[in-house]
Amino acid sequence: MVNNTLDQKIFGWLAEDAPLGDITTNSCITADREITARLVAKQNGTVCGLDVFKRVFDLLDPGVKISFNVQEGGTIIVGFEIARLSGKARSLLTGERVALNLLQHLSGVATKARELSSLTAGTTAKIADTRKTTPGLRELEKYAVRIGGAVNHRFSLSDGVLIKDNHIAAAGGIASAVNAARRSAPFTLKIEVECESLSQVKEALDAKADIIMLDNMSAELMTDAVKLIDGRAITEASGNMGERDIREVAATGVDIISVGALTHSVSALDISLKFEI
Amino acid sequence: MVNNTLDQKIFGWLAEDAPLGDITTNSCITADREITARLVAKQNGTVCGLDVFKRVFDLLDPGVKISFNVQEGGTIIVGFEIARLSGKARSLLTGERVALNLLQHLSGVATKARELSSLTAGTTAKIADTRKTTPGLRELEKYAVRIGGAVNHRFSLSDGVLIKDNHIAAAGGIASAVNAARRSAPFTLKIEVECESLSQVKEALDAKADIIMLDNMSAELMTDAVKLIDGRAITEASGNMGERDIREVAATGVDIISVGALTHSVSALDISLKFEI
Amino acid sequence: MVNNTLDQKIFGWLAEDAPLGDITTNSCITADREITARLVAKQNGTVCGLDVFKRVFDLLDPGVKISFNVQEGGTIIVGFEIARLSGKARSLLTGERVALNLLQHLSGVATKARELSSLTAGTTAKIADTRKTTPGLRELEKYAVRIGGAVNHRFSLSDGVLIKDNHIAAAGGIASAVNAARRSAPFTLKIEVECESLSQVKEALDAKADIIMLDNMSAELMTDAVKLIDGRAITEASGNMGERDIREVAATGVDIISVGALTHSVSALDISLKFEI
Amino acid sequence: MVNNTLDQKIFGWLAEDAPLGDITTNSCITADREITARLVAKQNGTVCGLDVFKRVFDLLDPGVKISFNVQEGGTIIVGFEIARLSGKARSLLTGERVALNLLQHLSGVATKARELSSLTAGTTAKIADTRKTTPGLRELEKYAVRIGGAVNHRFSLSDGVLIKDNHIAAAGGIASAVNAARRSAPFTLKIEVECESLSQVKEALDAKADIIMLDNMSAELMTDAVKLIDGRAITEASGNMGERDIREVAATGVDIISVGALTHSVSALDISLKFEI
Amino acid sequence: MVNNTLDQKIFGWLAEDAPLGDITTNSCITADREITARLVAKQNGTVCGLDVFKRVFDLLDPGVKISFNVQEGGTIIVGFEIARLSGKARSLLTGERVALNLLQHLSGVATKARELSSLTAGTTAKIADTRKTTPGLRELEKYAVRIGGAVNHRFSLSDGVLIKDNHIAAAGGIASAVNAARRSAPFTLKIEVECESLSQVKEALDAKADIIMLDNMSAELMTDAVKLIDGRAITEASGNMGERDIREVAATGVDIISVGALTHSVSALDISLKFEI
Amino acid sequence: MVNNTLDQKIFGWLAEDAPLGDITTNSCITADREITARLVAKQNGTVCGLDVFKRVFDLLDPGVKISFNVQEGGTIIVGFEIARLSGKARSLLTGERVALNLLQHLSGVATKARELSSLTAGTTAKIADTRKTTPGLRELEKYAVRIGGAVNHRFSLSDGVLIKDNHIAAAGGIASAVNAARRSAPFTLKIEVECESLSQVKEALDAKADIIMLDNMSAELMTDAVKLIDGRAITEASGNMGERDIREVAATGVDIISVGALTHSVSALDISLKFEI
Repeated sequence: MVNNTLDQKIFGWLAEDAPLGDITTNSCITADREITARLVAKQNGTVCGLDVFKRVFDLLDPGVKISFNVQEGGTIIVGFEIARLSGKARSLLTGERVALNLLQHLSGVATKARELSSLTAGTTAKIADTRKTTPGLRELEKYAVRIGGAVNHRFSLSDGVLIKDNHIAAAGGIASAVNAARRSAPFTLKIEVECESLSQVKEALDAKADIIMLDNMSAELMTDAVKLIDGRAITEASGNMGERDIREVAATGVDIISVGALTHSVSALDISLKFEI
Repeated sequence: MVNNTLDQKIFGWLAEDAPLGDITTNSCITADREITARLVAKQNGTVCGLDVFKRVFDLLDPGVKISFNVQEGGTIIVGFEIARLSGKARSLLTGERVALNLLQHLSGVATKARELSSLTAGTTAKIADTRKTTPGLRELEKYAVRIGGAVNHRFSLSDGVLIKDNHIAAAGGIASAVNAARRSAPFTLKIEVECESLSQVKEALDAKADIIMLDNMSAELMTDAVKLIDGRAITEASGNMGERDIREVAATGVDIISVGALTHSVSALDISLKFEI
Repeated sequence: MVNNTLDQKIFGWLAEDAPLGDITTNSCITADREITARLVAKQNGTVCGLDVFKRVFDLLDPGVKISFNVQEGGTIIVGFEIARLSGKARSLLTGERVALNLLQHLSGVATKARELSSLTAGTTAKIADTRKTTPGLRELEKYAVRIGGAVNHRFSLSDGVLIKDNHIAAAGGIASAVNAARRSAPFTLKIEVECESLSQVKEALDAKADIIMLDNMSAELMTDAVKLIDGRAITEASGNMGERDIREVAATGVDIISVGALTHSVSALDISLKFEI
Repeated sequence: MVNNTLDQKIFGWLAEDAPLGDITTNSCITADREITARLVAKQNGTVCGLDVFKRVFDLLDPGVKISFNVQEGGTIIVGFEIARLSGKARSLLTGERVALNLLQHLSGVATKARELSSLTAGTTAKIADTRKTTPGLRELEKYAVRIGGAVNHRFSLSDGVLIKDNHIAAAGGIASAVNAARRSAPFTLKIEVECESLSQVKEALDAKADIIMLDNMSAELMTDAVKLIDGRAITEASGNMGERDIREVAATGVDIISVGALTHSVSALDISLKFEI
Repeated sequence: MVNNTLDQKIFGWLAEDAPLGDITTNSCITADREITARLVAKQNGTVCGLDVFKRVFDLLDPGVKISFNVQEGGTIIVGFEIARLSGKARSLLTGERVALNLLQHLSGVATKARELSSLTAGTTAKIADTRKTTPGLRELEKYAVRIGGAVNHRFSLSDGVLIKDNHIAAAGGIASAVNAARRSAPFTLKIEVECESLSQVKEALDAKADIIMLDNMSAELMTDAVKLIDGRAITEASGNMGERDIREVAATGVDIISVGALTHSVSALDISLKFEI
Repeated sequence: MVNNTLDQKIFGWLAEDAPLGDITTNSCITADREITARLVAKQNGTVCGLDVFKRVFDLLDPGVKISFNVQEGGTIIVGFEIARLSGKARSLLTGERVALNLLQHLSGVATKARELSSLTAGTTAKIADTRKTTPGLRELEKYAVRIGGAVNHRFSLSDGVLIKDNHIAAAGGIASAVNAARRSAPFTLKIEVECESLSQVKEALDAKADIIMLDNMSAELMTDAVKLIDGRAITEASGNMGERDIREVAATGVDIISVGALTHSVSALDISLKFEI
């Protein structure tokens, strides 16, 4: 993301939380009062969002100092001091909630990505995200997915071609749909076809699809499909993966397992800011 | 929200998901192709976000028709057809994900709000939200909280006064902090003080606080505090309420139980769009 | 206001005054020419807006130096040198008008607020503003009101509840209206009811309104209302206060006198920038 | 103004007044309730801003109907019914204040413009505005000036050349300054020179200035200057005109009298909306 | 492009051309005056931009009627009447220039794309664009390229991987660079490598690059490279193609010939609007 | 242009070219890698846009250092090193294309302006631009026109009065149109009338037009018109000047020759960035 775009979002989030300033803090605490704070983990997990956490304060007040004790993507455990902050009390208190809301959410995503990824150990499968992201947070959530060790599917409808059943029906078959996409999409994008049966997989292979999505298939069927494809296309397992046995799916030999729950059902990782006044 | 502000957000979310259009759909499906779709629940819960779901399509293409079979806040069960949609295939496919991401998230919030609220039945306590919301979605999430039968705490740092330990320390005591806030905040706002002990509760009462937050108190201590306050201020239980026994807290006689997890750890309610082409 | 929001407004005002630059200055004065200037009062009053005056130049050219000889809210008299400025001639000349327009307007508001407030000396009444502000300048004008020693009413329709005759009529009486508001507004906001008679005041008290507006009442009636209320609610005198005898109203014992003219009929305080080239 | 720009401003003003909706109205009045209202003059004057008044409601709810009983620029007297409005109660109540704040302000400007213009009757002088406008409202205020029968000076630093003392000093004399401007400004703009003495006027004439500003001159000196210029340039009287005897200035024969107070010290024209529920 | 994004751009372009309205038209022509106009080709070429031409007027005034006599991408010759317009004179005159500037520019791009594409007849080569587009117009220009029968390269640095010499040097070789990109880019994107020699081509093939750019190669070398690659990767000829003999390059057997001049050196196609008043 | 406005445009152009970052560079080159580059002319011409070239990098990364070897408007020849750049490789590679696209385009405009201006040597005629500019780039292109030694016509419909045939027809003659414009336009703007015959020129002179456009006249007719006008108005030759013999037009004695092709048909000046890694 060009930084300016993220900055504008942060300014919007700050304005959402303090459109007319922090009236409590501004009335109780003088402008020159300094304060320190400790950022402490209250759950175990993977920390993600340190840069955006810091940027919130930078934009509010460049005088706020933050020193981190862990790197992006590091493992944190309950009680670990993630960072120390110091600066004007008004700045720290006004930025606290926005910064924490982001950090906890992104760490929640990264933690889940890491957990799921660990389940594919010993296979060639990688966990991937989907477009089931929180509106407004897609780029950050997809970043957290990478930090957690998983991989990204397309970012949007504009930078990937994924031919689903409706496209196939409307275009008059897999071959026609693939050809239509090949004619009009930038030639730099891979073409993926969603398949629900082996016969569809065959059609997709014939049409020289670059990626074949094995949608809502049983582990057995998926194994057969992977064998049939035999490296001629990337294979992606999809369909309620958040509730399936990832180990079993990974064992089918697929390259990618895409999981919507990675981003649509996130529990914030509990992290808090302890002020020392 | 003035509609325009929400519209601008929706346009932003649509641009996030299709900055340069839906290249798959645009290549495979002609511009005049019509399609219908059924919006179907795949989990039980409280539906929320019907208006914003509809608005996504209105902004994309006013020709899309949607007829709902349930009202905002209604209970839905697995398999229930929430709505029927019809219109240009391109419009439905391009708007699908943004509309669903919103609907599933808000329904997730409302469902949780309703679940927690049901736990306070038979008491005077109400479940309330916090400022631990998803950046960019605060107003919508707080709306979902109301739809789920819970109530709203302040919307931001600018429309409520909540005096916490740091404010008290900096101002030199509860009385000074309350007086400072009373002098400079709009006189139309209530003043809330966070208390961790009965002696702080007494000070807050003496300072004529309008709301007293009972922070991280045991059920016993909370019960004592409620008795001490005796209706002279609104009482709010706070502090990791997402993990505590809501029934027990409600039984202490508090007026409000505020729960961050209502909005910071939401599981999307599973809802899908089935196209019929 | 989160600074960024004000900054964006200032950039907008600068663009309004110089969308394509200052063509006179840019043609007549070279880019490296330095200049100094004196900011001088040409009327007596209360100065307000020093920060925003300075911010205009900061945003245009951080090299502009400004040293103030008076603090925000200080009294200035004809001929007083408020500040000295130095820097690039182009920057000072290009920013001059926007900076002065703001300073003169806000000083005009603060001066009027102070004048009206002085009329309530010896009573407990405070002068308050209304929502009759200049579109786009509400936050700055309400800030100037505070600087002039008066207090703020709600900032917008979203952060205060003020039940007027139409709300009462639609809701079916004062009690119903108050209850409706209490159910759906954040519990952190006070509820105000506009009353035109003693019987309405009684109803509002019974409904436990937090603030009672005494609208367009004679001084006699207002005195009776204040006695009837007897501290059980905050009292606010309203209705053409800009043209009434503030001393007489204040003597009725009301807590608040709200005056629309504070912000809707402002005379700029005459202040000018004298360049020394 | 391209309509979109004004629309964006109106949306901003509506958001300023109801960032999260009108919580009182939304809780007390159901969404389908209809209402009518009468827009009534409470002072005599020139009405201005009918279009923008209407646009506020159009943008909020195209269902609001407004029928005007007077045309833009018409004279209104106390008690005159300017318009009738009908529509959803929520829309009328939510838009009321923004619409009235604009209408009252612009009518205040137009009323003052008309008053001052009437003082020049029988002379060739016209009243003009300046750049001393309210930040964010310049175009609307300059429009109100025209509606009141006065004329516009340049809109900004970018669409007019006005050479002042600093420019002259920096450029090394009037001739150099005029030549510099002529070389680099679009050739479609007139060049104005601010003069404080007859000798400066002569220099400006020699440099073929298109407009000569007679700044802070006594009526006598101004008369001499006008005679000297003798139609070879447009003449503009300037300098605290808000406090001088406009008739006397007009009698000197100047073409233009520019008055900052037209826009920097405006009293809102009292107009109110009477709801009938 | 989500329509709203294009609409915002159009509003910006209209504001650029008439920030404060069309003062000539508004003074000379009454608001209700109707007018018709003929849009006429003054050069031969491929017409492109009919939708955006129409959208300019739709946004300015939905009452403007336009009927086209040719479809997007059609061939036009001198004197051909492309469209007829009718509506308010003010709307047609105010929108004319922005609409024409767009139409002429996009038609210029499409015309050039068609000319160059015709030179590859009889070969498998296709003409493609580059990122050498006019700032702010990329999506429209790339659309015009497609309308002219050429194809699109990646839209931005974010939706394609193109490994150039610097990337190779920094990553420590083609294999390392390709692997690095494969690890962190979305798996839905093809990976392209810029090669200047046959040995680099071999390395790129070994690294399983999806696209191989043959940069600044002679026709002979290019022919050898195409043979070497033998269908295992897409081949793209690049490097000053605007000045080379396209027929000769196409004859080498490459799949893609990318030409920066398609968008960086465009001659507007002469089209004018003839008003009939 | 107030810098902020240009900055916002640059951020938009950067986002157009890298909405989600430069995925190739970010995967292949580490964040701390430094690089240098030489900016080299590959064609002869007039360089223009050095400031905006630099600003692109400043906004992306203030750590990028650029030292120029030529001043804005200087002549460059093939092989000349215009500048040296150094800084983070990621910043240089990510900003390269946007910065170059601007520099090449503006240099193309300036080069053409200089070429055409050289053709008027020995006459009093000056080359001027028109409103036939690239949407979104008007101010920059008009700046490039000045850098190339030509002059600017009005910037928009809002800062100049140009009465064309439609205005004349609608207003009922040249005199009426001029008077209408004089009444409502700011008195600081010159009034121009488009004339196609000597009789129209006479009418325009009688109406005291400030500028007379000689539209689509033969050199002979133009010469007669200039004589007739005899210095009483500025004369502007217009109408397909890009294809006419500028020397012949200049010899007629006109003051201004306006050429749309200056900005609507620009060939980028070839300039490239050579990285040294």
